[in-house]
Amino acid sequence: MKTFHISPPDEALRSALQEKIDHLNKPKGSMGRLEELALQIGLIQQTLCPSLNHPCHLLFGADHGIEQEGVSVSPREITWQQMINFSHGGGGVNMFCRQHGFELQLVDMGVDHDLSPYPDIINRKIAHGTRNFLDAPAMTPEEADRCLDIGAQMVSDCHARGCNVVGIGEMGIGNTSPSAVWMHLLADIPLDRCVGAGAGLNPEGIRHKLQVLQTAVRNFHNAPPATYRGKAMAFHENVMCRFGGFEMVAAVGAMLRAAELGMVILVDGFIMTACMLMATHIQPAVRSYAVFCHEGDEAGHRLLLDSLHAHGLLRLGLRLGEGTGALCAYPIVESALRMINEMNNFDNAHITKYF
Amino acid sequence: MKTFHISPPDEALRSALQEKIDHLNKPKGSMGRLEELALQIGLIQQTLCPSLNHPCHLLFGADHGIEQEGVSVSPREITWQQMINFSHGGGGVNMFCRQHGFELQLVDMGVDHDLSPYPDIINRKIAHGTRNFLDAPAMTPEEADRCLDIGAQMVSDCHARGCNVVGIGEMGIGNTSPSAVWMHLLADIPLDRCVGAGAGLNPEGIRHKLQVLQTAVRNFHNAPPATYRGKAMAFHENVMCRFGGFEMVAAVGAMLRAAELGMVILVDGFIMTACMLMATHIQPAVRSYAVFCHEGDEAGHRLLLDSLHAHGLLRLGLRLGEGTGALCAYPIVESALRMINEMNNFDNAHITKYF
Repeated sequence: MKTFHISPPDEALRSALQEKIDHLNKPKGSMGRLEELALQIGLIQQTLCPSLNHPCHLLFGADHGIEQEGVSVSPREITWQQMINFSHGGGGVNMFCRQHGFELQLVDMGVDHDLSPYPDIINRKIAHGTRNFLDAPAMTPEEADRCLDIGAQMVSDCHARGCNVVGIGEMGIGNTSPSAVWMHLLADIPLDRCVGAGAGLNPEGIRHKLQVLQTAVRNFHNAPPATYRGKAMAFHENVMCRFGGFEMVAAVGAMLRAAELGMVILVDGFIMTACMLMATHIQPAVRSYAVFCHEGDEAGHRLLLDSLHAHGLLRLGLRLGEGTGALCAYPIVESALRMINEMNNFDNAHITKYF
Repeated sequence: MKTFHISPPDEALRSALQEKIDHLNKPKGSMGRLEELALQIGLIQQTLCPSLNHPCHLLFGADHGIEQEGVSVSPREITWQQMINFSHGGGGVNMFCRQHGFELQLVDMGVDHDLSPYPDIINRKIAHGTRNFLDAPAMTPEEADRCLDIGAQMVSDCHARGCNVVGIGEMGIGNTSPSAVWMHLLADIPLDRCVGAGAGLNPEGIRHKLQVLQTAVRNFHNAPPATYRGKAMAFHENVMCRFGGFEMVAAVGAMLRAAELGMVILVDGFIMTACMLMATHIQPAVRSYAVFCHEGDEAGHRLLLDSLHAHGLLRLGLRLGEGTGALCAYPIVESALRMINEMNNFDNAHITKYF
């Protein structure tokens, strides 16, 4: 599998950053999460004056074989219809990209439809959707490796254009199912606590989804060990291939490459948090580059964030996907950098130092 | 007292607004709080295409006599020092106004310092701070009436320049104390649940603050009924004058006038929520115009919001004041209007209707 070389940010700068933040003319700690963000991004960029440049948003789309088991309330064709809608600028992701000045890249990783007539959709199609993971791997290790590489390459291209902050989103009907299984198997959380309503299942639908995923996990545990290029795969690699979506593995590759390049990663909701979880199993240091942007109502998201010792910046009840939670949080991240860069300190503001 | 004529938004448009929102190409309800905001602002503006124009932020500053009782961790001079700092553009409020394109108005309602050398600070000084409300009214009814009028006039001026959304903030060392007492007396919540750390009191400091406020409330209950222009004052008017800050009563007037003009009111944290509570006791319909922007960690803020059946949009742990919570939430409000105005619907996006 593609390897990534990620160094955690050098901690030597932490005390100087904290001192700068504490010396701004405000009661100590009174900017709450903004202070945490400024500290984190200062560390990522190794500077007392961090900045966000040329923000890019990558939206990876793909279909899922497991959708055939009736685990989603939305029909499969929504994936390709929405990808086309995004290419025309009419989706949720488009309006927030316009609002916050993000360059948007739409990437077809495996949508079950011919999207080649749409030049704004980058064609990286692996296949017309993954295989049904009920009793077989969703993708081969070769396919997973290609997804990691494509995701990484997309980020490298953004970086070459001056980008140092990347939002990542997805479009893929059915993809809360693989996310729930990744979470279950990697974070060791009971499956029934990982499974939720997705885009709008009723309680009966959720029960069915849970049963399908329980069967899929049982079959996975009973399958012979998987190999890649003659070697046994690591457990997380096995989990990635068995259940993953092409768009999800591409997102994992994008996250890992972004961290390798010292970029800020805007992590969206449940699905993207599951991808970050997978990324930490590949390279734990990726965690330091992640800003968790939105804490959704999807049942397991709070537990998933807990497992990463994270709190979402926003809680707006979003469950659209597309990375919209990441985009909505961007101005808050910008506010944090305004604070550390523009706010006077006690010396130059001639203010009595207070708490 | 100055009277305000506020009509609640005509509800006739609600179903058409809800239908427009439900027909956008997304699972129903999947934009969470953004959908609520779009609906609310559509109703306020009585249109299916609401917009926010020429946002203004009013920052009212004043000192508090009760500060002499040691209820705040910060010294009194911070109020005037910060007002000058804001006039030089170096405060928290300044950077967020720049970020989101707000016109900022700094209003001296009663700061205990001569701020006349600073032309960017609008001089509406009532006095050099309120009187100590431990055993006497903080202000006279005449002074309160002037504050309401000044706050209202500031909003009228913004409205005349094309503004339809106003943020309101405060600077006044000690003003969590009057806010806590307003909350206690108007929302009927035990005083010890209304009192918190303010800008950073330790537990001992909080106990002392509570004792001071308990004494002040007892003395208030034992005082003879107050009158204004020969008539008995309503209970809430009495509470307003007895404990209020000049900046707080100006904020109440600003909120009421904004509602009268059909403007969106961005309500900041604990102190501004207490002002909105007071405003609802003067004219309940003001509530419909309020967007509660930030839910702080100040002990009573959650309870105060509960009493208004409100949830803060953001929870970032801010406790700076100045209206910074209101400003930080503004891009989220803008996102809601992007949604209702720019997102395709199922018809024009050619997407299968889903949930």
